[in-house]
Amino acid sequence: MPRYTAPTKDTQFILHDVLNITEAGVPGYDELEADFTSAVLEEAGKIAGEVLQPINATGDAEGCTFENGVVRTPTGFKDAFEQVKEGGWTGLDMPEQYGGQNMPAVLGTAVGEYFSAANQAFTMYQGLTHGAASAILAHGSDQQKDTYLPKMVSCEWTGTMNLTEPHCGTDLGMMRTKAEPQADGSYKISGQKIFISSGDHDMADNIIHLVLAKIVGGPEGIKGVSLFIVPKVHVNEDGSLGARNGVSVGKIEEKMGIHGNSTCVMNYDEATGYLLGEEHKGMRAMFTMMNEARLGVGMQGLAQADAAYQNALDYAKDRLQGRDVTGVKNPDGPADPLIVHPDVRRALMDQKSFAEAARAFILWGATMLDKAHRQSDKDADGLISLLTPVIKGFLTDQGYDMTIKAQQVYGGHGYIEEWGMSQFTRDARIAMIYEGANGVQALDLVGRKLAVDGGKHVMAFFELVKSFCKDNAEVEGMDAFTGPLKTASKDLQAAGMYFMQNGMKNPNNALAGSNDFMHMFGHVCLGLMWAMMAKASLKALAEGTSDPEFHETKLATGRYYMARQLPATALHLSRIQSGADTVMALDAANF
Amino acid sequence: MPRYTAPTKDTQFILHDVLNITEAGVPGYDELEADFTSAVLEEAGKIAGEVLQPINATGDAEGCTFENGVVRTPTGFKDAFEQVKEGGWTGLDMPEQYGGQNMPAVLGTAVGEYFSAANQAFTMYQGLTHGAASAILAHGSDQQKDTYLPKMVSCEWTGTMNLTEPHCGTDLGMMRTKAEPQADGSYKISGQKIFISSGDHDMADNIIHLVLAKIVGGPEGIKGVSLFIVPKVHVNEDGSLGARNGVSVGKIEEKMGIHGNSTCVMNYDEATGYLLGEEHKGMRAMFTMMNEARLGVGMQGLAQADAAYQNALDYAKDRLQGRDVTGVKNPDGPADPLIVHPDVRRALMDQKSFAEAARAFILWGATMLDKAHRQSDKDADGLISLLTPVIKGFLTDQGYDMTIKAQQVYGGHGYIEEWGMSQFTRDARIAMIYEGANGVQALDLVGRKLAVDGGKHVMAFFELVKSFCKDNAEVEGMDAFTGPLKTASKDLQAAGMYFMQNGMKNPNNALAGSNDFMHMFGHVCLGLMWAMMAKASLKALAEGTSDPEFHETKLATGRYYMARQLPATALHLSRIQSGADTVMALDAANF
Repeated sequence: MPRYTAPTKDTQFILHDVLNITEAGVPGYDELEADFTSAVLEEAGKIAGEVLQPINATGDAEGCTFENGVVRTPTGFKDAFEQVKEGGWTGLDMPEQYGGQNMPAVLGTAVGEYFSAANQAFTMYQGLTHGAASAILAHGSDQQKDTYLPKMVSCEWTGTMNLTEPHCGTDLGMMRTKAEPQADGSYKISGQKIFISSGDHDMADNIIHLVLAKIVGGPEGIKGVSLFIVPKVHVNEDGSLGARNGVSVGKIEEKMGIHGNSTCVMNYDEATGYLLGEEHKGMRAMFTMMNEARLGVGMQGLAQADAAYQNALDYAKDRLQGRDVTGVKNPDGPADPLIVHPDVRRALMDQKSFAEAARAFILWGATMLDKAHRQSDKDADGLISLLTPVIKGFLTDQGYDMTIKAQQVYGGHGYIEEWGMSQFTRDARIAMIYEGANGVQALDLVGRKLAVDGGKHVMAFFELVKSFCKDNAEVEGMDAFTGPLKTASKDLQAAGMYFMQNGMKNPNNALAGSNDFMHMFGHVCLGLMWAMMAKASLKALAEGTSDPEFHETKLATGRYYMARQLPATALHLSRIQSGADTVMALDAANF
Repeated sequence: MPRYTAPTKDTQFILHDVLNITEAGVPGYDELEADFTSAVLEEAGKIAGEVLQPINATGDAEGCTFENGVVRTPTGFKDAFEQVKEGGWTGLDMPEQYGGQNMPAVLGTAVGEYFSAANQAFTMYQGLTHGAASAILAHGSDQQKDTYLPKMVSCEWTGTMNLTEPHCGTDLGMMRTKAEPQADGSYKISGQKIFISSGDHDMADNIIHLVLAKIVGGPEGIKGVSLFIVPKVHVNEDGSLGARNGVSVGKIEEKMGIHGNSTCVMNYDEATGYLLGEEHKGMRAMFTMMNEARLGVGMQGLAQADAAYQNALDYAKDRLQGRDVTGVKNPDGPADPLIVHPDVRRALMDQKSFAEAARAFILWGATMLDKAHRQSDKDADGLISLLTPVIKGFLTDQGYDMTIKAQQVYGGHGYIEEWGMSQFTRDARIAMIYEGANGVQALDLVGRKLAVDGGKHVMAFFELVKSFCKDNAEVEGMDAFTGPLKTASKDLQAAGMYFMQNGMKNPNNALAGSNDFMHMFGHVCLGLMWAMMAKASLKALAEGTSDPEFHETKLATGRYYMARQLPATALHLSRIQSGADTVMALDAANF
């Protein structure tokens, strides 16, 4: 059975040594002293390791069931959900007004990684609720907020997001679910939604579905889509629960993974719904939820990669097989541990150097969210908006690959379910798909985000990298970081330049390179994270840290990334610069 | 439900236009006229598409069962196995003396791809039998051959290979299964073997286990390992079946995929075994089987990739979602098909350009096997021996990635089991692990095969690429192929040079680059295949072929590979040239 240990020391290093959050001047950050965040992270790590992780493999094996109209979660989920609720974890970064603790997103994100790593399927119940609550917080009326938020912040009621229909996923303009206006201002919602994560279950008294639908008589296509609050159980004026609404589960899907999460077909049969936000502006309201969800999904890529890595590392240290070609390392044993073998190390270093930089990337991104929300910082808002598809697409593609590398360390034992390595890969696989498949993320990045505000945000990113390199080039030990980072950033700029020069005459020249661009952007971001972490570790060492091994290890891991991973930008650039011609050469009929 | 259509036209192109097999001068190839191979391939394609494919998804869902000591295969497997046997497919490339049809390996390989693509779990029963029969053919006494081969060639009896034990996989020197010599020349075999594919089932009267064990009192470690024939049921002198041998199933494993194949824990409790080949030379005998199996596993990488690709292509043509940014393609429909989108095309072209070149690579490899076996061609034997780890490791790593890309085309529908795309990935995953995990393949390539016969075979490979490029550089249209191929081949040579110059002082400098080397070698091989295919298609077009679209498509697909995939060699080279330092920098305790 796998184990999970929350990387609290690493999170602390990022928060305090790299991001220096208490000095960042963001409202609320001054409370995040190292002792405080340490206490929160340790406690969260305990919940993750002792409550959520033990029901991860069993939840996978057992799955959810649907009988007689009732969806049941796997054994132990209900109890664990109670513990998470009682600990106040569900409202950690939600407003105090609604029962939350008003912590910044950066802390909520750090905790979220641990929970996701320990049990992704379980944590999704809470995650979807958080996203739905955020949408209500941003777009709801006061009455809607008062009705739903206190219960959702505490997860007494959970939430869902309903977008996909059988014939439309990405292209929501084709949606058929309709909303008939009623005399009392409510709507009757009818239609079928599929792939609804946490769609129904036995862990909450009510489920608040946020449903996209078209108001009858409204505009065609995506411009006629509105967002509705559709509770599973009607809420009376006094807040008590009334009769069942016209919402039912059609079936739960058999999936490749995240078996502990109930993925439902939801049928709406004249269900009463309440408009959230403005008529026909449903996509805007939904995107509050989607953007939060995309960052959360990017985090899942890291989370599964790190959980898988921890176990692969244990196995590589324990399993005796073969001898170190440079000299026996375990003379008293029948063989040396796997970790002596260079190719096993390569796989482990790939994982380690990814996970640590991805963690920094996500927490850095969360600080931008906090700046955007708490300081109305438009630049931070623009940058995180640009980076959202990179975080979602790159970290889930790479995170998935890392779970495969972790599984591979186990040989045949990785393929049988007994050791749990298969689950990491099967659970991680969904993150490349949901909340906008990664191809859609790449399209969003290249087709939309690059050009926002006249390209201001991407230019700001390049400037940030450039000035970091310039400011730190002279620091001893930094050249192993700033050199490769500069090269990679130039590759990325060259790709952007190629798009500008060739995308005008044929947009396919940009779009055919979108996936490569997303990946090279991700590599540059992780390269920047390694450079920032190296700077912090060099400083700590120069100041005589009491833990030199931690910082030496950090530097060695970073040097690995710069030498072995970051150069991938050149390959991506060469693909991009080959243009759309070879990609689009065939008629569809000739495939 | 997925479909599978055997790519007979493509196989024919490779056999006759690219490899020109009937003119190759290999004994038996003169019989392989295009009409004949076409008839065989069409018939094999029918079995694959109509008999094996329909029980692929059901076999995955149902799996094998083990109750009261009896292993049962999924519904329909037994009937399908009868049909495959009746068609004579199991002995296609086995000697006539034992009931086979004596066809060359190149034809057996072509057929094997179809069967594997249609149903990998099912085809393994036959594949393991073929491998075990080959080992008996190569190393058995006349009496052993007469006893076992006729039944195994017909698959009345099936075979297995038993290497792994709970504490040892790659490092077989640690094996504990022992063989006690008996007065009658037989041995009593005792021990436990795990991960035994097709270990027990209900489709054959007997199962012939080939089991590695240590003869009591023999040398320590790998030098004391011998190979034994251990039948499930004793065979009487007259060939009839007697009592059960001391072999039993401990359990069947719960796996990530290939659920239709019974992966067994096998317990040997003083089972009667017969030495196959020489005492203490078990590894040599087993490698006859392993090498054949490794080529077969490489083929599985291609097979799953192609099956997944065919379905992804169908979906990309059928599924309407979004609009072509360069102009609406399906004005009468609510949206354009997915295939109009550049990033979807990129994914499809990756798959198509991989599958077609991988097919050529495997069939080219099979011609080397035929030359080695039928002409005692030492050069061909040396080259296929060098390329075996590349075929196994590169094609299964890449093949797996392609199934992931195919699954991704489906969005959320790829993640639910209903559409079958999950199964392709789960089944393909094992191929990176069994018959020597891909890290072991890379080690075999760099640590052993490169240096065989003083590096003669790798030099011959470089020479082959060089002279092909030289001979064809002037052909119009070939420069798009020979140019990139030359560059990639130079990268590969530079990597080899780096190993020579730096591996002597520290072998880790070579081994830390072994995975990258295997991959760049694979890319150069596929680049060579594309160049050879381009040459054949240019020739066909110049000669006024009746099917210009096929050849134009072939050229366009090849140009995609050369522009978008082959340049990966530069990244692999840069990783290799970064050496072992960053890979090996950490103490194990500091990970």
